[in-house]
Amino acid sequence: MNTSKKSITDIEGVFASGIHCGVKSDKKDLAYIYVPDAVSCAGVFTQNKVVAPSVVHDRKALKSGVIKAAIINSGNANTGLGKSGADNTKKMAQQTADLLGLKTMQVAVSSTGIIGVPLPFEAIESGITSILADPKQKDGQGAAEAILTTDLCTKQVYKEAKIGKKIIQIAGMTKGSGMIAPNMATTLGYLATNANIPQQQLQDALNAAIDMSYNMSSVDTDTSTSDTVLCWATGQHNVNVRNKTEWEAFQTLLNEVCIEMAKLVVRDGEGATKLIEVTINGAPTVKEARAIAKSVIDSPLVKTAIYGNDPNWGRLLMAAGKPDTRLNPDKLSVFIGDHVLYQDGDAVEFDHEAIVAVLKKDPVNITFELNIGSATATAWGCDLTERYIEINTDYN
Amino acid sequence: MNTSKKSITDIEGVFASGIHCGVKSDKKDLAYIYVPDAVSCAGVFTQNKVVAPSVVHDRKALKSGVIKAAIINSGNANTGLGKSGADNTKKMAQQTADLLGLKTMQVAVSSTGIIGVPLPFEAIESGITSILADPKQKDGQGAAEAILTTDLCTKQVYKEAKIGKKIIQIAGMTKGSGMIAPNMATTLGYLATNANIPQQQLQDALNAAIDMSYNMSSVDTDTSTSDTVLCWATGQHNVNVRNKTEWEAFQTLLNEVCIEMAKLVVRDGEGATKLIEVTINGAPTVKEARAIAKSVIDSPLVKTAIYGNDPNWGRLLMAAGKPDTRLNPDKLSVFIGDHVLYQDGDAVEFDHEAIVAVLKKDPVNITFELNIGSATATAWGCDLTERYIEINTDYN
Repeated sequence: MNTSKKSITDIEGVFASGIHCGVKSDKKDLAYIYVPDAVSCAGVFTQNKVVAPSVVHDRKALKSGVIKAAIINSGNANTGLGKSGADNTKKMAQQTADLLGLKTMQVAVSSTGIIGVPLPFEAIESGITSILADPKQKDGQGAAEAILTTDLCTKQVYKEAKIGKKIIQIAGMTKGSGMIAPNMATTLGYLATNANIPQQQLQDALNAAIDMSYNMSSVDTDTSTSDTVLCWATGQHNVNVRNKTEWEAFQTLLNEVCIEMAKLVVRDGEGATKLIEVTINGAPTVKEARAIAKSVIDSPLVKTAIYGNDPNWGRLLMAAGKPDTRLNPDKLSVFIGDHVLYQDGDAVEFDHEAIVAVLKKDPVNITFELNIGSATATAWGCDLTERYIEINTDYN
Repeated sequence: MNTSKKSITDIEGVFASGIHCGVKSDKKDLAYIYVPDAVSCAGVFTQNKVVAPSVVHDRKALKSGVIKAAIINSGNANTGLGKSGADNTKKMAQQTADLLGLKTMQVAVSSTGIIGVPLPFEAIESGITSILADPKQKDGQGAAEAILTTDLCTKQVYKEAKIGKKIIQIAGMTKGSGMIAPNMATTLGYLATNANIPQQQLQDALNAAIDMSYNMSSVDTDTSTSDTVLCWATGQHNVNVRNKTEWEAFQTLLNEVCIEMAKLVVRDGEGATKLIEVTINGAPTVKEARAIAKSVIDSPLVKTAIYGNDPNWGRLLMAAGKPDTRLNPDKLSVFIGDHVLYQDGDAVEFDHEAIVAVLKKDPVNITFELNIGSATATAWGCDLTERYIEINTDYN
């Protein structure tokens, strides 16, 4: 599970770059994405009740037509700052629109980083002028660097599939390391495809993909006020949205890209040493399977046990039993990797050293067989370590 | 907020003691409580779907009449062990009942500690014989020690109030340090009062008190499979349950005792250095106030910021905005101690050093004024430190 060497600018007609403008002390902190001929753009946003003015702006922009560009700063979330914050978001959109010959509402804005600290707007203003001097740059890697905050690495995914007679490509970049919670569109993510998909269908496809990827991943149960995922379609190749085979192939490709992006985010979770994948099988409904998977992935006692390579299946049972779902402990079986630790409601003799060896690998796969239905769900998370505490007690 | 020197055996007619029987390596691990003339006994249990057989037994016992005694072991939760676990619970109840001249269903059983490890039943069996050689011991302190697991201190609360013409006493002991979550009856707790309260009214009063105390406290969002709170009434002094003043006075006294017990639990949260008290004012409904208070108290990013003495009010906003409640960021104000950091939707200049000084004290009080209603709620939690990780990566 490594970041791709390909980036969103490997999609024809997608331009992007990233620079250092001065929000952060030295790293890249300003990116743009420009898709002049986009036929559609879909978006999903945080469900937090406290949102950045950029999210307010982007929601409006999404409703008013096809978004053609995004301007993104990292290092400062421009949130909790009253009218001045909203004014700065609007100015970022206006300036970008002017330089690209677009309307303000065709430009999305994202700001990610610390909340409540005034945005150094002059640095951003001159940065926008500088980065858009040439609006047709193909530096997706630079953009992927510039959107990061506490991330340790860039996060890019590229996949392609033959749909109909054409190679359909989807490329994405994302960021996020802390304040990552399930049940929402978390973090920032930007995707582009060369497919020709109308606005509503692209939105439906993105909603479905986010629901089984970002919404099933968690670092720390906290939810950013800036979370945004945008997906552009350049329209180069037709995908027949009325042809079930073609449409399902596109949805599958988008799901795969979003799942890879979400996994890159949780694997780089603050302080994490490994990815944890929890699969629930045999649930009465998908909703219940999802709730149990998320409960396990969110449990601090599960996360610390896995960090400690401790096959403490008691904590797995505890975490599975927390949500308000159907669950019959007498029918339950629990696996770490291929090893069963608990079967049909009773402890099983297991090879402790063999399971410790599985726990020491990355990723760790945990499976629950509920045996009370046929629905399934998978969630992704990471372990919880002293380093998470260190990073977050001294964030400033 | 210190543990009381008085214990449940300071209530006339309540007997208890604690010994080391051999579940743990050296500390006390077996306690009994015996209230031979109890007029009523109320109980509240975990809402986890995976429960210890002791919880199954106690729920049945509660329905079948007045519980007169409890036998409690720490160091082993006797959970996840199939039929052998259920058999051991039943044998513990039977043996205790035989020695006290009670029926099996008049004896509650609690087992707390590691899940999935077979109970060393012979040690418990000889321990029960030994501890009940004299069933009328007044060693509440010993019992309070014997119910502990990772706790660093005993947790006892005693309060009294003049209700009608009599001094009504309530004493309680509790345990718990990790796997402490809101929205359930968490941990173990045992209370006794000298009041004369019928079974149903005592149950109603306990439900209400738990709802605003244990159910509003959280160490780590995890929920034990053994959680149990029992409350006995000895019947010494009448409380007129039909007299509104007397009944409210009793309910208030019980609430105060339960809140103190819950605060003792979270203050001793695994690795915690301080208690955090979060109050939500001006919410549209109590339900929404509770949801926001619990979201803030549960947020790892809030907990680590407070551990780091960092007045990061952005994280407070983020955590308040997470639950699905009404919240208008433009009307919101946030206080740490008496200092306002965010007012009517905008950042406020504040004295950074003064607030760091407040954060360095124990407890830390955080208040949100929502200004969109008149409902209020308070929740209690603790900070999140490296020590929590250390304790829980190496629990065995």
